[in-house]
Amino acid sequence: MSKSKILIGTDTISGVAPQLLEAISKASKIKTLPYGNDVFTKDCEETVKNIFEKNDLEIVPMMSGTGSNSLALSSFLRSYGSVICHIDSHINKDEGGAPEFFSGGGKLINISNSLGRLKAKDIVTKIEEINFKGRLNPVLSGVSITQLAENGTLYTTNEISKISEICKKNNLYLHMDGARFANALISQKSITPAQATWKLGVDCLSLGATKNGALAAELIIFFNKALASEAKYIIKQTGHVISKTRFVSAQLNEWFKDGLWLKLAKTANENAIYLSNKLCKFSEFKLVYPTQGNEIFLEMTKVSYDKILEMNIFPNLWSKVGNDRTIVRFVTSFETTTSEMDEIIRRLKTFF
Amino acid sequence: MSKSKILIGTDTISGVAPQLLEAISKASKIKTLPYGNDVFTKDCEETVKNIFEKNDLEIVPMMSGTGSNSLALSSFLRSYGSVICHIDSHINKDEGGAPEFFSGGGKLINISNSLGRLKAKDIVTKIEEINFKGRLNPVLSGVSITQLAENGTLYTTNEISKISEICKKNNLYLHMDGARFANALISQKSITPAQATWKLGVDCLSLGATKNGALAAELIIFFNKALASEAKYIIKQTGHVISKTRFVSAQLNEWFKDGLWLKLAKTANENAIYLSNKLCKFSEFKLVYPTQGNEIFLEMTKVSYDKILEMNIFPNLWSKVGNDRTIVRFVTSFETTTSEMDEIIRRLKTFF
Amino acid sequence: MSKSKILIGTDTISGVAPQLLEAISKASKIKTLPYGNDVFTKDCEETVKNIFEKNDLEIVPMMSGTGSNSLALSSFLRSYGSVICHIDSHINKDEGGAPEFFSGGGKLINISNSLGRLKAKDIVTKIEEINFKGRLNPVLSGVSITQLAENGTLYTTNEISKISEICKKNNLYLHMDGARFANALISQKSITPAQATWKLGVDCLSLGATKNGALAAELIIFFNKALASEAKYIIKQTGHVISKTRFVSAQLNEWFKDGLWLKLAKTANENAIYLSNKLCKFSEFKLVYPTQGNEIFLEMTKVSYDKILEMNIFPNLWSKVGNDRTIVRFVTSFETTTSEMDEIIRRLKTFF
Amino acid sequence: MSKSKILIGTDTISGVAPQLLEAISKASKIKTLPYGNDVFTKDCEETVKNIFEKNDLEIVPMMSGTGSNSLALSSFLRSYGSVICHIDSHINKDEGGAPEFFSGGGKLINISNSLGRLKAKDIVTKIEEINFKGRLNPVLSGVSITQLAENGTLYTTNEISKISEICKKNNLYLHMDGARFANALISQKSITPAQATWKLGVDCLSLGATKNGALAAELIIFFNKALASEAKYIIKQTGHVISKTRFVSAQLNEWFKDGLWLKLAKTANENAIYLSNKLCKFSEFKLVYPTQGNEIFLEMTKVSYDKILEMNIFPNLWSKVGNDRTIVRFVTSFETTTSEMDEIIRRLKTFF
Repeated sequence: MSKSKILIGTDTISGVAPQLLEAISKASKIKTLPYGNDVFTKDCEETVKNIFEKNDLEIVPMMSGTGSNSLALSSFLRSYGSVICHIDSHINKDEGGAPEFFSGGGKLINISNSLGRLKAKDIVTKIEEINFKGRLNPVLSGVSITQLAENGTLYTTNEISKISEICKKNNLYLHMDGARFANALISQKSITPAQATWKLGVDCLSLGATKNGALAAELIIFFNKALASEAKYIIKQTGHVISKTRFVSAQLNEWFKDGLWLKLAKTANENAIYLSNKLCKFSEFKLVYPTQGNEIFLEMTKVSYDKILEMNIFPNLWSKVGNDRTIVRFVTSFETTTSEMDEIIRRLKTFF
Repeated sequence: MSKSKILIGTDTISGVAPQLLEAISKASKIKTLPYGNDVFTKDCEETVKNIFEKNDLEIVPMMSGTGSNSLALSSFLRSYGSVICHIDSHINKDEGGAPEFFSGGGKLINISNSLGRLKAKDIVTKIEEINFKGRLNPVLSGVSITQLAENGTLYTTNEISKISEICKKNNLYLHMDGARFANALISQKSITPAQATWKLGVDCLSLGATKNGALAAELIIFFNKALASEAKYIIKQTGHVISKTRFVSAQLNEWFKDGLWLKLAKTANENAIYLSNKLCKFSEFKLVYPTQGNEIFLEMTKVSYDKILEMNIFPNLWSKVGNDRTIVRFVTSFETTTSEMDEIIRRLKTFF
Repeated sequence: MSKSKILIGTDTISGVAPQLLEAISKASKIKTLPYGNDVFTKDCEETVKNIFEKNDLEIVPMMSGTGSNSLALSSFLRSYGSVICHIDSHINKDEGGAPEFFSGGGKLINISNSLGRLKAKDIVTKIEEINFKGRLNPVLSGVSITQLAENGTLYTTNEISKISEICKKNNLYLHMDGARFANALISQKSITPAQATWKLGVDCLSLGATKNGALAAELIIFFNKALASEAKYIIKQTGHVISKTRFVSAQLNEWFKDGLWLKLAKTANENAIYLSNKLCKFSEFKLVYPTQGNEIFLEMTKVSYDKILEMNIFPNLWSKVGNDRTIVRFVTSFETTTSEMDEIIRRLKTFF
Repeated sequence: MSKSKILIGTDTISGVAPQLLEAISKASKIKTLPYGNDVFTKDCEETVKNIFEKNDLEIVPMMSGTGSNSLALSSFLRSYGSVICHIDSHINKDEGGAPEFFSGGGKLINISNSLGRLKAKDIVTKIEEINFKGRLNPVLSGVSITQLAENGTLYTTNEISKISEICKKNNLYLHMDGARFANALISQKSITPAQATWKLGVDCLSLGATKNGALAAELIIFFNKALASEAKYIIKQTGHVISKTRFVSAQLNEWFKDGLWLKLAKTANENAIYLSNKLCKFSEFKLVYPTQGNEIFLEMTKVSYDKILEMNIFPNLWSKVGNDRTIVRFVTSFETTTSEMDEIIRRLKTFF
């Protein structure tokens, strides 16, 4: 029996939301100056100011998530500096050394724990360790957190608040990798974008739209404008200013319009809950982190994982647990359909 | 009398060719793995091999022209190295120091002349000067030429051939910035892409589609495969691997299909000839370089230039000539219409 | 009662061995070409080849230990690469980010343990973790060990041999930070410089003379000559070629002459044993690592440490143990005198 | 007839002044903390403040001239920045790309002329060219001049004053490469160190002692203290903090003591005048620049140069003039003896 291939390991397999495709088409009909000197980018700035309820902020629209994280970090990370982040964070493990490169040699100082999120207490310990004896160690200049975290879980407002407090106390900047920020936001009841970021003390946010409906659109928001002073030079020098920037801004404008970004994220999250609930019913699969966004992490035997691949279902192999077991990631998106998820469950039932 | 604004200073004001918009829409419907592990990118490689009649080449599709040039250069330019280029080249004057950054401190060694293109003879002189006394100067590792050159003119096959010879003799790599390569190709009768590049000794080509129909699509072609060995790491570390790479490759595939890239360039070039001929009839304007692609360079007084702006026509201010005169650039694209150009002439006639 | 200040926290407080001072004076009388093109540097190369029993090696004499480590590492660590080292290693904690800078963004991947030395088994685990899923993580290119380790202990030949095996198996280069290599060598019975390095698979050694008799003299030895190919460019570009290089080489030549380097190290080590034995008799002090070179690490209460400072004795505050206790380092050198050590003990006895 | 070899091509062939050798010996007897936390370095700071009549300055003693220039430049040169310098300046041609490396990709923008010194007027022209159209070119942040210039001539106070004015007007920092600053100072009647530097608007000076009596001692003086804010991190990260820094400071202290630095330079300059006068009497040799410091530049045929080498006299081959002629440099130092110079003349007379 032939079965269609089901890719369910990441939200980057998704396409472009129809509204954004339409926006691109429309933008194509309007001639504008290149390199961000266009009305779409101007509009985008206004939109972001409204949505984040802050007038003194600066934005940098770009096409690359790695670029967005690295450029944001380089706003305070010097070559001789360092930034604390979780050992499993995207900037540490999945960006090919980009933050180190953008900063000309800056250092990511890792904190490791099974929670998948930084804890204020661990940051304090690390700071003390670094400051001990006042050696000319790579100078600590900031902390980077990921919301949703790499393991799909949510930093609570309280957790971020505590981290932020420590940052302020130690003159450290706070960066948020928001590749799945919309999923995080929608996952929390009654919290505004402002409350989730700068009101908690976040200095800059790398906000991603690509995993959530865009072709390629990422946005750095500098809530702390002082950090933006060199951004226009660095983004140019790193090749991340594309000529037809209007197509990035046009995507973002549409994405923000009428809360589309949150609607798309809501769909993705609901899909994850739906799928997670069904997957958890299999005794073979053990949910290792709560499903708080659009990601589901299951521990299973390697044998089970191989069996799933045989069923032409492709989740993402995440990590090893001992010699025989693995953690496997399922990610839903705005495009994931109920029938697709039901089909996954149907196939799994044939064996598990 | 109100007059509509006419932007005619660069081809980056153009939109996306309808065929490419359609290709993007289609690609959006197909779920694929991210980061270039998709069928579109595979196809793109095959297409390029066919078009350039070479099987042992490697491609890197990306979204940024500056990124494409810098990544290509960094394949042979070390931090302690140097590359010869024209002082007016895009890599030297318009990329914010990107080649220097990608290489961690590499040096661009400039040759200055009014021709706007490197001459083999001048390269020889420069090499002799650098090698004199064998000091540990930034080590010369390559030459970069731009086809079309920054002043819109064409390197003849003979010119490139001579430069290439010198490169081979001195163990230098030869890079071609082909941001307007299609315009250059179509401008020459009966020359194939292969004949215009690797058969002349070009080691790598940064081929641009963005100025000629794409939303954002650039392609490095490593004819010399040895140069590609580190490319996948550098492109990742510089943040130029976007997750939905299939949309870059899908654009390129459509662009190459049935010679669309050449048709678009042909239209752009023909537009330039049409406009250039008309502009030259004004005694006030002096054509400073032959119109060999899609760019027209006119010398005029500053006063004339200001007058043109008043007419709501926006060419590009290029350079100064003494205190009173300037060189002004008009660029046509595949989208420029005859009526638009006629309207330009009509307005100019009201004064000049 | 006034007591003279006793600095005993590091061997870098020591002066220059008289023989080396004399060698500098002599070299000053001979005019030579600058930048290493001198007979002293030629001689140094021959000497090193003899002492390390290897003809195909390359040397780079320089003045900075950090420079020597970083330059050696940069011979195989690319901007997108990574090197495994102990979390407490000098390159990771005490060189201000130099390896990251020299490599333009390379990454040090830390292994943490209380042993203070890398264990082959932990390296294997880390390699597996890095290679898992084959992501484009910073590419692993080498391992760096320190002999003597940062905690003053010795890697056994067997330990290095196992690490080297893993390196070869995984195509990793092996670097040795030998800031106290002479102390390590003399600490082992009947082992030659060759047996302690390249015969075990060490690719390059950063050999330090400054802590052991020199004014400022460090030496990179590339046993693997392929690694030296870019060294002359990088050392120049990082400003580590000094004009009067002959004074570095002259120091090294004298240092190696008639085994002076080993004699100086022997004195330093014997001093450490002498002092360590006496210090251990105080019940208040707990020796935390075996005294295998010229360093003694004692755990004590903070109160005790402060008391010692009051006695005008200055060991080095090393690390914290919980809230009330610290580890304190005493380092002897070729210059430390018995009377100085006896005086330390005498003062300590007045309280402890 | 056998003739002894006479090296006369550079002042870096010289040894160490006896007073400085003595100072090194003395410093060796005093135990101090490493890394600049010593009394010698403290004293050096006071001395420099006195000599330069300025209390709010910061110093960085180091061992490398290239390091000193690059570190000074990196205090204001960012990766995306640029600095104007003469095409023949040491930083541009003889430091292996160090300024570019230290700044992570900064650019040196060259001005070329036969004078060998920057002219205020040319700087203005270059600034206008760079600022034209306000493109995101490498951002201009400073100007670097060399005193004595590379061709051995002197910037007049008036010349520097004009350059400084332009710098202030354009918010550019002014760096002085003072590798031969003492020679320049002594060459001018009644001018103080202060009048020759910060009173003219120089922001930072790389002052070299190595060519003029030291073993290896260079000093950055930040007259503009704001520029020094990152220096301690960069010098550490680039490996230019040596452990036994006291030996650098001890050299400098002695060098400054009782005007020794000026006495040494005076001897060197007087030697140059003596030799220059005699060399100019040969009709074959044409003095191309006035002998204003300790360097003599003679134009002669290649044949003549080869003849000189045959006489076992080794001046420095400087540059080519057409195909048959060369410029040859003779450099005297504090060690050059009259009998040595007379011997040169004696030998030359046997042929010319």
